[in-house]
Amino acid sequence: MKIVHYEEIEAKNFDSDLARGVTGRVLIGSADGAENFCMRLFTIEPGGFSPRHSHPWEHEIFFHVGHGAVWDGEGWTVVGPGVAVFVPPGVEHQVKNAGHVPLAFACLIPKGAPEL
Amino acid sequence: MKIVHYEEIEAKNFDSDLARGVTGRVLIGSADGAENFCMRLFTIEPGGFSPRHSHPWEHEIFFHVGHGAVWDGEGWTVVGPGVAVFVPPGVEHQVKNAGHVPLAFACLIPKGAPEL
Repeated sequence: MKIVHYEEIEAKNFDSDLARGVTGRVLIGSADGAENFCMRLFTIEPGGFSPRHSHPWEHEIFFHVGHGAVWDGEGWTVVGPGVAVFVPPGVEHQVKNAGHVPLAFACLIPKGAPEL
Repeated sequence: MKIVHYEEIEAKNFDSDLARGVTGRVLIGSADGAENFCMRLFTIEPGGFSPRHSHPWEHEIFFHVGHGAVWDGEGWTVVGPGVAVFVPPGVEHQVKNAGHVPLAFACLIPKGAPEL
């Protein structure tokens, strides 16, 4: 059994032309023997955002701390701690920090999708 | 895209001889079109606990609020907000509330396992 706080795992920085202030960590993945789906933890700094994109696999997201907004292809919805988001395959999406503290959320993907 | 706070979803109570103070909700499941894995949200009241059991499917757990402890078949590990737990298939496990406020955690399972 693996038991880990996400801050114990080294973060990968995703800053680019398409993303700002984003870090990602694999909390539970294939290296742990998780064969069916993978749990990642992302943080986004105030003013930051993830890429606006779509892909053939789904996301199951759980917002842990901070306040953000989610783009669904047509508009933004404000989200905060305790909110779950299901992004079906092929749906355009983006997450941004809409608050003043770091935004942190778990984002899970099925096997076969890139873990990070 | 489904966007929902867990408190918007009706909770199922799991009190029995084996569990105390436990509620469960399906946040993202097959009814939403999630074909590969399912996100549930459990709460455990202070003094409460989930069943001590094992089963042939894995759990990927993310602790959201409160303080608890996880049984791994040999002992207890204290957990709190931001902790992820991977329970491999077949490993005995139990979660209890070790604090003074409700414990809330997301617990994900692969397709084929009972959603709740």
